[in-house]
Amino acid sequence: MVVKVYGPAYASPKRVILCLIEKGVEFETVNVDLLKGENRDPEFLKMQPFGSLPVTQDGDLTLFESRATMRYFAEKYKSQGTDLLGKTLEEKALVDNWIDVEATSFNPPIYAMTFQILFAPALGLPKDEKAIQESEEKLAKVLDIYEERLSKSKYLAGDFFSLADLSHIPFTQYLVGPMGKEHMVKSRKHVSAWWDDISSRPSWAKTLQICPPPM
Amino acid sequence: MVVKVYGPAYASPKRVILCLIEKGVEFETVNVDLLKGENRDPEFLKMQPFGSLPVTQDGDLTLFESRATMRYFAEKYKSQGTDLLGKTLEEKALVDNWIDVEATSFNPPIYAMTFQILFAPALGLPKDEKAIQESEEKLAKVLDIYEERLSKSKYLAGDFFSLADLSHIPFTQYLVGPMGKEHMVKSRKHVSAWWDDISSRPSWAKTLQICPPPM
Repeated sequence: MVVKVYGPAYASPKRVILCLIEKGVEFETVNVDLLKGENRDPEFLKMQPFGSLPVTQDGDLTLFESRATMRYFAEKYKSQGTDLLGKTLEEKALVDNWIDVEATSFNPPIYAMTFQILFAPALGLPKDEKAIQESEEKLAKVLDIYEERLSKSKYLAGDFFSLADLSHIPFTQYLVGPMGKEHMVKSRKHVSAWWDDISSRPSWAKTLQICPPPM
Repeated sequence: MVVKVYGPAYASPKRVILCLIEKGVEFETVNVDLLKGENRDPEFLKMQPFGSLPVTQDGDLTLFESRATMRYFAEKYKSQGTDLLGKTLEEKALVDNWIDVEATSFNPPIYAMTFQILFAPALGLPKDEKAIQESEEKLAKVLDIYEERLSKSKYLAGDFFSLADLSHIPFTQYLVGPMGKEHMVKSRKHVSAWWDDISSRPSWAKTLQICPPPM
């Protein structure tokens, strides 16, 4: 049974899709329209009790955290496609460490900015300018730390592309594109070179082509 | 060289310590006093650029995300102590999924409550009652989802204790203890039984004995 990814238009599911493309795993997508509240449908909530995206089904297995899902596919298909996990136990630990940095330090402010700048207007909600400013300040501090880190290694976990880098791509695309905050990346030399590198991977072009964002 | 864990008084480092005890791995601890700002010392920031806890050193390897660190030790010592990862690829994926739920849905509100209720007064900061209330509402919704989940399986990832459960212990102890919010656990039958089970593990008693919390 082919892998199914729910909500391909949005950023978090694109982490899973990028991973599947890098690994050469066939999949199909199922649209979920957040703006219509389809994520609150009872049938959807049976798969994903928090009502958020993505949901991914691989046969009888249902996963709904994007980073856990990437790890699962990267491990299941470790002998094919791009190695995204690192080769040694120590490399794997550093990949994990920087995935967790993305999840707990990078994602909260960039998610808040994405919601306020792009989605609040589409939902008819007022923009919270104070929340945007506070999130931008938090994100800037995180990017300063990335600048230092990326001055010492080409990618976040070391000198190899991994899930830790991949995990940043979908929301950073919003930041440099429709959110109009490209300067946050471009003003940091090493972050800028890293972004140019990871966003020019064919897997990302393919993801955007088959799963265009809603805005 | 023995494993070193920095900041044992606090909750996040206790995830790592619990894991090391469950796996029967020897370690030593290095005190870091957040109330004195020792986490902003330049030497500390070289190890942990975000200035937060824990930091863990295993020989030349330095990790600073508690969940990535647990995963590393659980994998490195998979043949000894308690199995905390799951046995099959699918079980491991579910453990990962529920660790990520803890990191992204459970931890943000309980961390905010812990900071506001316990640490703000110790730092001479005013309590933000609105933030406490909003966080409590968010945490209640997460616990409602746990209640449903734990009505179907004994532990979060299935019928086996894992890192997914362990990861919840240190902050939940603050909630039911010094924060005076025990009713949030006790009022939910399955969450309450789960908490009684996981918090009565000898590894947790030993953690509290050797690493008493600062308050």
